[in-house]
Amino acid sequence: MDRLGSGPVVLIGAGLVGASVGCALSVAGREVHIRDLVSSHARVAASRGAGTIAPVSAEEVELVVVAVPPRALAEVVAAALVEFPRAVVTDVGSVKAPVLAALASHPERSRYVGSHPMAGSHHAGPLTAEEDLFVDRTWVVCPHPDADPAAVETVRAMVRACRARLVELSAQEHDRAVARVSHLPHLASVLVAETLVDVPAEHLALAGQGLRDVTRIAGSDPGLWEQILAMNAATLSGGLQELRDRLDTMIAGLAAGTGVRDQLVEGVAGTRRIPGKHGRVATAWASVVVAIPDEPRALGRLFADIGDAGVNIEDIAIEHDPVRQVGYLQVSVDPDSRHALAALLDDAGWSVRG
Amino acid sequence: MDRLGSGPVVLIGAGLVGASVGCALSVAGREVHIRDLVSSHARVAASRGAGTIAPVSAEEVELVVVAVPPRALAEVVAAALVEFPRAVVTDVGSVKAPVLAALASHPERSRYVGSHPMAGSHHAGPLTAEEDLFVDRTWVVCPHPDADPAAVETVRAMVRACRARLVELSAQEHDRAVARVSHLPHLASVLVAETLVDVPAEHLALAGQGLRDVTRIAGSDPGLWEQILAMNAATLSGGLQELRDRLDTMIAGLAAGTGVRDQLVEGVAGTRRIPGKHGRVATAWASVVVAIPDEPRALGRLFADIGDAGVNIEDIAIEHDPVRQVGYLQVSVDPDSRHALAALLDDAGWSVRG
Repeated sequence: MDRLGSGPVVLIGAGLVGASVGCALSVAGREVHIRDLVSSHARVAASRGAGTIAPVSAEEVELVVVAVPPRALAEVVAAALVEFPRAVVTDVGSVKAPVLAALASHPERSRYVGSHPMAGSHHAGPLTAEEDLFVDRTWVVCPHPDADPAAVETVRAMVRACRARLVELSAQEHDRAVARVSHLPHLASVLVAETLVDVPAEHLALAGQGLRDVTRIAGSDPGLWEQILAMNAATLSGGLQELRDRLDTMIAGLAAGTGVRDQLVEGVAGTRRIPGKHGRVATAWASVVVAIPDEPRALGRLFADIGDAGVNIEDIAIEHDPVRQVGYLQVSVDPDSRHALAALLDDAGWSVRG
Repeated sequence: MDRLGSGPVVLIGAGLVGASVGCALSVAGREVHIRDLVSSHARVAASRGAGTIAPVSAEEVELVVVAVPPRALAEVVAAALVEFPRAVVTDVGSVKAPVLAALASHPERSRYVGSHPMAGSHHAGPLTAEEDLFVDRTWVVCPHPDADPAAVETVRAMVRACRARLVELSAQEHDRAVARVSHLPHLASVLVAETLVDVPAEHLALAGQGLRDVTRIAGSDPGLWEQILAMNAATLSGGLQELRDRLDTMIAGLAAGTGVRDQLVEGVAGTRRIPGKHGRVATAWASVVVAIPDEPRALGRLFADIGDAGVNIEDIAIEHDPVRQVGYLQVSVDPDSRHALAALLDDAGWSVRG
């Protein structure tokens, strides 16, 4: 039996994530009613297939999905539990324990079950909403001791309807996990990016892919991250202190001349624990690097030639030359295939390097 | 006039960078003699076209390229200046001022001019050496007050022969630049990677692309980085202290509830200073995400279909699903082209998301 039911769904907040939930549930046959403080957002979401902006009878609503900015989550969830007396209420926020804590004395909290789809994007508005945004993505559902088991099952069914991969963690465990795998790395990225403000341009010209990788997420929306980090500040403090202690150890080791070898080795061990692609070791591949001409459709033509080469491609990446404003496509292949691919692309007139 | 000359070149150290210099100079018509403590490395480099392992008359040598591990650089450079009485001696190490300082009282230091090709790679041995490793890469040459102008011109000519992009900085300026754009980011990446050692596996399952990006360079060879960081420790100390001060500000802001908005905003400003691709804003693109089947040649066939679509591709990236062991190709295109590309790939049988 599908506990998602068949009654109306209310979506509160029609940003990318909210509108995409609306699209997915609409495709699954549900009647979704969209609400957003910015009425144009609701209309755009409706035009993307996220549902209707028509009003709904509050008593009939079976599920409310709250997808508002982090700092408004607890208040909107609390109000929804009152406004929709029969509905299961969930939210899709990035931090879970503070919302639950804010509902600790709410008489209707058994109908609330928080969740968090791990579907990031640079696109913040409903214009790019898609019904398949969550397909194969991790979506954490956070049951709590006071939750009605039927409400938990309804939220699970919503995740399945969005074709995401369901993971269940308590709100506290979820917040500890995202502190370590998302919020602390974000702050470290910001720390490095901040220091670049004072670096002379001629020094920045020596920047390679490493700097770009480390600082990429520091380019994210400060308004959103300010809220996420503030909500998870208590959970983050232990990790930040650990980061500071490890930094002090580094500073002391370099100053004393004893070096940082142990930390470098531990860092390698840490990177190996991140679940990766088939557990393969990237260093076993060889790469062919091709200059991408600054012409329309250059990458498309290059892809077509690579595809025609018929070799097994393990990975690809684009490198940008900081000064000459050209790009390079790095194609990783089995070492045995490297020369064949390089020769074929060379014959096809591409500028192949290495 | 090409100051590179025509006499024999000696290459000391036949790792990837050294052997690739040998290949490039051999292609440029120079007679390169390879020397490595590990004789098999010298033989492999010779088989890759880096030169010959035959002996050479020391008096005839015009250029010596020292490409040994960082901690051995100063000693090997000093010895080469004595052994090869007419030769210009350069090195390709990642840190420059300590080598120059070690030669401060060397009577032959006018024939030494350090350099640093910014060509990184995960591949450390000569097996993957290529004559075009340095094409279009930045290669810093570091003249010093005691340097013979003719020696500086010889090293410039070597860089041109390798088809790299010549940048000139003093040794001290070079070391300050790499401290900021390479060594500090490396240490920040290691700090984050270290903390992952204690994170439960079920929490790591929530890791996204952000964590992978931030920690990628922490997976580099600790033996090499230990030496680089130790050599640049004095220059790094100011930056590390700045990183610590900024971290303290973050910890205080989150603890006090005043937040970290200023730092997030400054981080965004920092990322924007990194020279990038045509100065374009990535957020202006729309993306099509395609599941990559775990089948031989899947990426190649996918590339061929994307190429055939004839749309202008702005960027590409591969995302790896940490749990289901599938990958996704994210193709960034002009928003106007997104639906056409998605529809075409869908028609071709690919699983298109978003």
